[in-house]
Amino acid sequence: MNILITAGPTHEPIDAVRYIGNRSSGRMGAALAEAALAAGQAVTLIVGPVTAAMPAAARRIDVETAAQMLEMVLTEFPNHELLIMAAAVADYRPKQVTREKLERAGTLVIECEMTSDIVAAAGKIKRPNQRSVGFSLESRGNLSRAGEKLVRKDLDLIVYNPIETMNSPTIEAVLLWPAGRQEKLNSQSKSSFAEVLIHRAIELFDPLVQAGSGSS
Amino acid sequence: MNILITAGPTHEPIDAVRYIGNRSSGRMGAALAEAALAAGQAVTLIVGPVTAAMPAAARRIDVETAAQMLEMVLTEFPNHELLIMAAAVADYRPKQVTREKLERAGTLVIECEMTSDIVAAAGKIKRPNQRSVGFSLESRGNLSRAGEKLVRKDLDLIVYNPIETMNSPTIEAVLLWPAGRQEKLNSQSKSSFAEVLIHRAIELFDPLVQAGSGSS
Repeated sequence: MNILITAGPTHEPIDAVRYIGNRSSGRMGAALAEAALAAGQAVTLIVGPVTAAMPAAARRIDVETAAQMLEMVLTEFPNHELLIMAAAVADYRPKQVTREKLERAGTLVIECEMTSDIVAAAGKIKRPNQRSVGFSLESRGNLSRAGEKLVRKDLDLIVYNPIETMNSPTIEAVLLWPAGRQEKLNSQSKSSFAEVLIHRAIELFDPLVQAGSGSS
Repeated sequence: MNILITAGPTHEPIDAVRYIGNRSSGRMGAALAEAALAAGQAVTLIVGPVTAAMPAAARRIDVETAAQMLEMVLTEFPNHELLIMAAAVADYRPKQVTREKLERAGTLVIECEMTSDIVAAAGKIKRPNQRSVGFSLESRGNLSRAGEKLVRKDLDLIVYNPIETMNSPTIEAVLLWPAGRQEKLNSQSKSSFAEVLIHRAIELFDPLVQAGSGSS
């Protein structure tokens, strides 16, 4: 199987030197790529400006902004069976980008606009034989919000993960499927979690699981 | 001699996951620390969230924000003879920091206020037997602005460097001293430049150089 995984943060330029970023290290994406490779699958990684090392055996495409990541996902998804959106894509970008360096003077107001929703855009070009998995990073134990995203973005599986996961070596996640099935996972290393998630993602191609027979 | 070097960017939080950052890699600070160590000096590094590796032989203090870097510089400078401010400290930080993750909804306006000027604050506590070196990153060939900073911040030497230096392996710099002396350096690797700068910085303790005898 060809698996497309996005990883890391995006950086949205304010001016020639400044940007808006987020604390994603890219470790989750790297762990998922490793687990997929270990399961004998071919992996393409679309990677923002990460600090974590990525497995050399994956094909790697580097991007910086949410717009560049959107473009690469729309280009690459048609050539893959499975998409896992593990990147922490910026929701907002500055409306105006100053080409030079803004000088220090008085107050600075940065007006931001929403970026395109990459997961939703991928959902719109998804073919019946393709599957997609998303992540929902929430600051409270807000499972219903993750469930709403699962449906709205036409995902086949979503990972609810608390905000503390970001830039941490461990994850305490809940998996949600469209038919209402949930699986609460114990706190564990990202590599251990990645093995579970790759297994569940590959199961999405099993007709019995698609029919929603599993529930807990 | 005890040399205090600041390196890397700072990250100024917007909310629990987002921040304003800049493209500094920390490579210049790392190169300066290596050159100072090679010259037999003791080095303390105050380091923002860098991607570059720092020399293990330096004492290292990690910080995230401009406010944390200010605090550590004011704490550490009295115990060092020489301060080199190679960090690309944020000029602005969001006025309000949201503890949770801001949800994606409509437009976002980030109001920013100026951070404290660390170089100027260090200048105010500088004793007669101490020296300080700053950097002036400018988007145009604006040497006069670097010269103005040199005087206003009570520096003994300033490095004018064009904005293209940031996150680049090379630097094309001009050194400026208070008495009007200038030295234009050819484009070179950061490690080669760092050797020159450490040499010039140590010369600042030579009484003849202090008298402003050198000019070009």
